[in-house]
Amino acid sequence: MPGPIHGPIRTSVGPGTKGRDRLEANRQRPATGPTPREVSRTVADAINWIIPIAGIAAVLFALYLARDVLARDKGPQAMQDVAGTIFEGAVAFIKRQYITIGILAILGAAIVGAVIAIVEGPDVADTSVYGTELGMRTAFAFLVGAACSMLSGIIGMYISVRSNGRTAAAAQHSLVGAVQTAMRGGAVSGFLVVALSLLGVWGIFALFGGLDTAGCTDADALTACSTAQAPFLIVGFGFGASFVALFAQLGGGIYTKAADVGSDLVGKVEAGIPEDDPRNAGVIADLVGDNVGDCAGRGADLFESTAAENIGAMILGVAAYGIASANGWPNPTAWIFFPLVVRAFGLLATIVAMYFVRGREDEDPMHILNRGYWATTILSAIGLAVVSYVMMETAAGVGANGIPSWVWFFLAGLVGLATSIAFVYITQYYTAGNWRPVKEIAEASKTGPATNIISGTAVGFETTFVTAITIGIALMVSHWLGEQAGLVNDAGHNVGGIFGTAVATMGMLMTTAYILAMDTFGPITDNAGGIAEFSQAEGGAREITDKLDAVGNTTKALTKGYAIASASLAAFLLFSAYIDKVNLILARQIEAGTRTLEEGLMTAVNLADVSVFVAAFIAAMLVYFFSSLAIRAVGKAAQAIIVEVRRQFREMPGIMDYTQRPDYARVVDITTRAALKEMIAPGVVAIATPVVVGLLLGYEAVAGLLMVGTIAGVLLATFLNNSGGAWDNAKKYIESGQLKDAAGAVLGKRTDAHAAAVVGDTVGDPFKDTAGPSLHVLVKLLATVTLVLAPLFIR
Amino acid sequence: MPGPIHGPIRTSVGPGTKGRDRLEANRQRPATGPTPREVSRTVADAINWIIPIAGIAAVLFALYLARDVLARDKGPQAMQDVAGTIFEGAVAFIKRQYITIGILAILGAAIVGAVIAIVEGPDVADTSVYGTELGMRTAFAFLVGAACSMLSGIIGMYISVRSNGRTAAAAQHSLVGAVQTAMRGGAVSGFLVVALSLLGVWGIFALFGGLDTAGCTDADALTACSTAQAPFLIVGFGFGASFVALFAQLGGGIYTKAADVGSDLVGKVEAGIPEDDPRNAGVIADLVGDNVGDCAGRGADLFESTAAENIGAMILGVAAYGIASANGWPNPTAWIFFPLVVRAFGLLATIVAMYFVRGREDEDPMHILNRGYWATTILSAIGLAVVSYVMMETAAGVGANGIPSWVWFFLAGLVGLATSIAFVYITQYYTAGNWRPVKEIAEASKTGPATNIISGTAVGFETTFVTAITIGIALMVSHWLGEQAGLVNDAGHNVGGIFGTAVATMGMLMTTAYILAMDTFGPITDNAGGIAEFSQAEGGAREITDKLDAVGNTTKALTKGYAIASASLAAFLLFSAYIDKVNLILARQIEAGTRTLEEGLMTAVNLADVSVFVAAFIAAMLVYFFSSLAIRAVGKAAQAIIVEVRRQFREMPGIMDYTQRPDYARVVDITTRAALKEMIAPGVVAIATPVVVGLLLGYEAVAGLLMVGTIAGVLLATFLNNSGGAWDNAKKYIESGQLKDAAGAVLGKRTDAHAAAVVGDTVGDPFKDTAGPSLHVLVKLLATVTLVLAPLFIR
Repeated sequence: MPGPIHGPIRTSVGPGTKGRDRLEANRQRPATGPTPREVSRTVADAINWIIPIAGIAAVLFALYLARDVLARDKGPQAMQDVAGTIFEGAVAFIKRQYITIGILAILGAAIVGAVIAIVEGPDVADTSVYGTELGMRTAFAFLVGAACSMLSGIIGMYISVRSNGRTAAAAQHSLVGAVQTAMRGGAVSGFLVVALSLLGVWGIFALFGGLDTAGCTDADALTACSTAQAPFLIVGFGFGASFVALFAQLGGGIYTKAADVGSDLVGKVEAGIPEDDPRNAGVIADLVGDNVGDCAGRGADLFESTAAENIGAMILGVAAYGIASANGWPNPTAWIFFPLVVRAFGLLATIVAMYFVRGREDEDPMHILNRGYWATTILSAIGLAVVSYVMMETAAGVGANGIPSWVWFFLAGLVGLATSIAFVYITQYYTAGNWRPVKEIAEASKTGPATNIISGTAVGFETTFVTAITIGIALMVSHWLGEQAGLVNDAGHNVGGIFGTAVATMGMLMTTAYILAMDTFGPITDNAGGIAEFSQAEGGAREITDKLDAVGNTTKALTKGYAIASASLAAFLLFSAYIDKVNLILARQIEAGTRTLEEGLMTAVNLADVSVFVAAFIAAMLVYFFSSLAIRAVGKAAQAIIVEVRRQFREMPGIMDYTQRPDYARVVDITTRAALKEMIAPGVVAIATPVVVGLLLGYEAVAGLLMVGTIAGVLLATFLNNSGGAWDNAKKYIESGQLKDAAGAVLGKRTDAHAAAVVGDTVGDPFKDTAGPSLHVLVKLLATVTLVLAPLFIR
Repeated sequence: MPGPIHGPIRTSVGPGTKGRDRLEANRQRPATGPTPREVSRTVADAINWIIPIAGIAAVLFALYLARDVLARDKGPQAMQDVAGTIFEGAVAFIKRQYITIGILAILGAAIVGAVIAIVEGPDVADTSVYGTELGMRTAFAFLVGAACSMLSGIIGMYISVRSNGRTAAAAQHSLVGAVQTAMRGGAVSGFLVVALSLLGVWGIFALFGGLDTAGCTDADALTACSTAQAPFLIVGFGFGASFVALFAQLGGGIYTKAADVGSDLVGKVEAGIPEDDPRNAGVIADLVGDNVGDCAGRGADLFESTAAENIGAMILGVAAYGIASANGWPNPTAWIFFPLVVRAFGLLATIVAMYFVRGREDEDPMHILNRGYWATTILSAIGLAVVSYVMMETAAGVGANGIPSWVWFFLAGLVGLATSIAFVYITQYYTAGNWRPVKEIAEASKTGPATNIISGTAVGFETTFVTAITIGIALMVSHWLGEQAGLVNDAGHNVGGIFGTAVATMGMLMTTAYILAMDTFGPITDNAGGIAEFSQAEGGAREITDKLDAVGNTTKALTKGYAIASASLAAFLLFSAYIDKVNLILARQIEAGTRTLEEGLMTAVNLADVSVFVAAFIAAMLVYFFSSLAIRAVGKAAQAIIVEVRRQFREMPGIMDYTQRPDYARVVDITTRAALKEMIAPGVVAIATPVVVGLLLGYEAVAGLLMVGTIAGVLLATFLNNSGGAWDNAKKYIESGQLKDAAGAVLGKRTDAHAAAVVGDTVGDPFKDTAGPSLHVLVKLLATVTLVLAPLFIR
């Protein structure tokens, strides 16, 4: 029977409880709880150093891969020219985009710092650091998070637009060579994103005293334990990362689809020239856009996922630390380091797994990539077992059925890895051409665009089913496993459940670098195809790049499924961290006498409370409204391109007979400016909503907003991503000649069915590349905003 | 500062609290609370009799209107023929549909009765009636609810398909005459639905002892007070009504759009004949469909809203009764009768308001209808003031600032009426051609179907903003007003807040009969236009029916906005009733010793609990999955029509040269069968999900499912309804010649822009007429299922 409410996640650990009788009584009670077994304390301590080692190793490995890719053949001059133009455009975009985001981030940091400095006085501070000092630290952490995210985006994209031409060149000779070039180019981005996020979190944690475990001997003296204090001081890092991710994804998503839709409309529809014709100045913007949206955008998205997950898990780790410490277990701070160490092992596993990305020339390229993915997963699982054993044997005891705690948490981590695999295959089923959903949409195209859209919508809606069930099972099972681990605090609350879901999230995110490498593989091969086409490359280059492009479409879709699943798990962990943080502040206020004991802690997020319900309603609305703004922004930015290309056609008559080169850079610049302008409105709405709701309705309502916003955002994004992916592949299915009419004749390109499928594909573009991915970020942003600004909502 | 949780809505009233010390102490404490002022007890008692009087008056008035309509000119023979064919089709549908639903309802009643009989033994029963007796009563109430809903649907639709030809005939001579014919025909349906729902709830309440107030003298003896027991016994009525509504709306919605899409595809696209050509046997099915979906479907939807709202409010009234009774106020049972009396006054107000439906020949017909609507609203407000004063002056005391309780609740009711008005205008803004959203979609049609769809989606998403904000404000304000009324129980909990939202819901639903009349006006005028076209009517008939049809489109859209808003308010009230019911059962179990006092009551629906969170996730998914099934069902049923019409074209060669009459009845029959078959899957999913979640995750998780399901359902329905309505009117905007190209030339019918708008319109059809309206019912069904089956979820 479920109890009516579960108690606060932590009531006994915190600055406010020092010396309380309750804790004293607990200390004196006989140790009936589990006791940890023996592992060398030296080993357990030493393992923490794997964090910077793995981070630096990954950076070095990324540099090695970058050197390897850059040393490869650049292909004939024609290819180099096109690649060069794309490179110029990408650099122009990066420059302007990151200057804008940089300014916004400095502004954001200043505001956040000032708010924290004013609000979080000694009475509400949850640590020994407060006021101006805390404001400055938070602002600093915010900036470091923002800078790391930006840096990884910039370098990753730089390599990505250097790999595209080389992939096209390799495709002239070898499929495996092309796969390796593209995958290594993508891996540079993947490793840098994950490594910088790991090093960033660890660095700021170290800077704020997290490595100083000297004072961590007394469960009651939380303020004396630097390691247990530091997680609360670094939440600004997560906020900074979310902040950059939001604008990177929004700006990139708007840019890529505006370029796509705008150049199509002005070239194909208006001027009547073919789709990728070099006379259309918008085409280069379109090729640039692929990198901007999928590479830089998704990189920022997953940078944030990993950073926020780490910080949230470390905050939850503080609760576990309290229990371990109260029980006198030898290595209590292991709980706080654990999330970082798990991720470090994930990075190491991925480095090794890169050597499994090899295969035969006649092999399906997807198999080659899958080989590496499975290697990453299996090595990660082994790494997880090692870390769990080494760290938890000294920091925990024995759980249910006499099975050690570490086994239970290791199993929870496996649930996360399994969820990752499940999403990879679920997304394939719904968005690849081999199965029922895409075929159904292709069939519906026979009766026109309307039935194509209706069918795609039905499929998109349907995909929420298996998504929700899978996430639900992952949460329930990992929570249950965690509960078996026997982490019960002195108030009788089992905090293992929440930590179980946290470990599942860690398990899921161990493979992030590999997933990101596969994702960036997408735009690189897409570009390679465009370059081969543009430069009329010889040999079977185009054939090979077409194959890789199809695989790239699948890997891009997979990454979105992975991102959305990890966002839901991370969000659950983050709002548990939010509740922990609020309760620390409330406990402090009770101690300080500014709050009565009767008002108490937050013991539930009660949906039956009208404020919470209304906040939940607003949260579910927010995801629609935000998507509406994002989708509309694409239309507005596309309009800017249309006007400019029209002008070029009019004022530069030589373009049409190839005597004049269109001004590619200008279109790129105009698209960039339009996209950056249009990203402001949805960005501001996303950040302002939780703050306004928090100020008006209070901290419990914000928790409701967070949770229902997560649910609604994950499901809407699932619909948008998957319907978009399915429409895209229904078009490709028809183009590949697999659709037949009643008489058995092929309905391929230039049929009405194909035209109908093109409509679906176009509708899906802003769904899957602008609104959907931006929603992933929104979900996590809600969590980091509220985590940082929690004191603002407590009155 | 919001407290961390609000306490249970009622802890002190219930069988489990009898004779507790706490209550005793309360009794002895000096009466510091508010005391009611004097109103003649006779008047206060007598006012209850207005319930059957108003119900019967409304039925008689509906009969009078029906006679009036039926006595009107049927028009020339050609018109009568077409109208006759539609009539036949409608009767064929009704017959088969209601036989199917009837069988399902008997099955449903048997299962529900059996489950209750087994589960609700003496230890979990919340009343003195339990076991087999309670099971039989619940099954009986279920059947009465189902029967009343079906009866009102059948009669209403019967009159509606009798009014269409007469409206066409009247349109030959007079606009006002046509408006009156259509509006009176619609009003028959409106009055019958509301009156049967009122009489049904009252009748079953009376039958189960609700009128026997003799034992209602002691606050502690809840079981002795028949009136306070009865609301819990009649929840089956609400479930029966939801059950019928779900299948009526699903079946009707699938039928109408399958007929629409199917006959278009096979006639216009395949055979190349015009849209409403009589040679196409599917056309009559299409005209029948308008009645089936909008008239019968929406009637069942609002029948359920009013019934469920009444029952839920009466359950909440029991809590207020407890307070009034404990305070010794003279007329405590008034709280339980209040919801019924308010609705009775609403009916009377609407009867009077029908006489305001008159105007000039050259007037915009919408103004004529609006006049009646405003009359209904103003008269309802006056009625509400009278009822509040008379009933609450003897049943409550004085609230905040010395203002009597009745004033606070009256104001809460006004909030409901205002919300109703707000939704009428919000829906107009987003779906009528005069404002920005529809114009934006029409503009986007210039660049093809893809941009039309993208723009419509953006508009549809956007409409959730104002919907959520309006509902949020209505809930917060009415809750706040209710809190000021001073209804505090002995445990210190203010139950007035929830009752305030209940009164707002009552206020909103006072105008239901009028809104429904306007809704049914839609299909009648739509049909009248079809009949005028079919029969080549003389004079300005077609011109007038076109005008009325446009107004009908607006009124149909308004009703959906109204239905969705009332569904959200009603749901909030219903899950408060659910919490009350669960706590009564828990209290009983504690008393019986099968549950410990420590396990306690349900004091919160805690989203931070993993079971509740997962249930909420499933709920939000359910609305997508259900919509996917409903949308897909339209496609499948349309396929059945296509096959049949193809067969007729092939086997009856005389059809094409008008020498053979197509077999209209067969198409209607086939469509009916297909629609009824396809409604089963989504219907079962809707009913099974809350039951399965309840069995697996328990009663608190179900509450989470209920609340988040409501939020998600309301918002998805808002998107589906409004995008569909806006696409529809964007097409009409273009057809009316208001869209111009850059050079100022009109882009009307037979342009690419129009073709693009037709795609949007077709996509919107299953959104706004199948999935959206079915979601309204789903939301309320979740509430009634769980209210009835609550004991099943308590372990």
